[in-house]
Amino acid sequence: MKSHTEYLTFHTRTHRAYVHITPQVETILKKSGVQEGLVLVSAMHITAGVYVNDNEEGLIHDIDQWLEHLAPFRQDYEHHQTGEDNGDSHLKAILVHHQVLLPVTRGRLDLGTWQRVFYAEFDGQRDKRVLVKVIGE
Amino acid sequence: MKSHTEYLTFHTRTHRAYVHITPQVETILKKSGVQEGLVLVSAMHITAGVYVNDNEEGLIHDIDQWLEHLAPFRQDYEHHQTGEDNGDSHLKAILVHHQVLLPVTRGRLDLGTWQRVFYAEFDGQRDKRVLVKVIGE
Amino acid sequence: MKSHTEYLTFHTRTHRAYVHITPQVETILKKSGVQEGLVLVSAMHITAGVYVNDNEEGLIHDIDQWLEHLAPFRQDYEHHQTGEDNGDSHLKAILVHHQVLLPVTRGRLDLGTWQRVFYAEFDGQRDKRVLVKVIGE
Repeated sequence: MKSHTEYLTFHTRTHRAYVHITPQVETILKKSGVQEGLVLVSAMHITAGVYVNDNEEGLIHDIDQWLEHLAPFRQDYEHHQTGEDNGDSHLKAILVHHQVLLPVTRGRLDLGTWQRVFYAEFDGQRDKRVLVKVIGE
Repeated sequence: MKSHTEYLTFHTRTHRAYVHITPQVETILKKSGVQEGLVLVSAMHITAGVYVNDNEEGLIHDIDQWLEHLAPFRQDYEHHQTGEDNGDSHLKAILVHHQVLLPVTRGRLDLGTWQRVFYAEFDGQRDKRVLVKVIGE
Repeated sequence: MKSHTEYLTFHTRTHRAYVHITPQVETILKKSGVQEGLVLVSAMHITAGVYVNDNEEGLIHDIDQWLEHLAPFRQDYEHHQTGEDNGDSHLKAILVHHQVLLPVTRGRLDLGTWQRVFYAEFDGQRDKRVLVKVIGE
């Protein structure tokens, strides 16, 4: 069994951001030499997510508005008694989920035509990391 | 390490549908010959999900109503400026999540008594695919 | 490929509860002897979840309130016609998701500084199980 691990770093200019990372994941997969296996793409923070969906600007806007509607910024989260103000970022991360597992078949990401991998930043403007681990043969 | 991959195709009669697929996954697992490992069940579309829960009709109705409440059909999603009308299908897919990972122990799906695997269609009436990849020994 | 599986049992005193289980998962990982691989942590019930986030009491309270807001207890779920009264527990479990996959690097859980694993109970006060399966080399 082969195993290959890399860490991507993101520093977004905005508080919330959606970064298309399929190309970076494909590059790491190629370096791993794995032909059959799995790639785990997992945020290493508790205010960020990773998801698979369409790389279409309008939809990305819709996702952002929808997340703000379901897990809105509010002053009165109990978490804020620690001095933080990012309670909503944690809830958005839980809703989106912090990781995906990508299948590898014949050396390539085995995704559908429109499936793209996104890093979802909910508390940015600082360095944040995503782990990419390839496992297989 | 063994690896075995198959693709299931669904063509639902309704726009939204919840299809119980545990038997198909078990059949693929058996063919793989894997005794210890993992089965990834992952939708290959951005308007469909895969989840594990109860095979009970009332609950499936509740899940459908709840998803429509939290991620409703609306005319005014920005995504619709591309000509699409399925913005809500993308949001429902993100909420449910598009994949599950099933443990395999002694050659069988190691699920709890009531756990069943479902394909959740949010934009059906056309061919859609689900990847099933078994990894292990 | 090594494989090591254990089952954790929880019996919470309250109907809903959030149990920090990172130490138990680390102990199982150590026993497995796996240096490079993956740990699947997966609830074996349809009214419980597993998630990764902060071990901070205020935030845990916020998560609980937020889940009750988005997937509230109600009398009139169709699922209740079976005699059950836990429709909301199923919906909360779907929202949180019932599993996480943890990367293992150099024999340790490869998590970010604040990432902790939680068992989320949505219908407790009875024995419930979580599967922990370590796969790797």
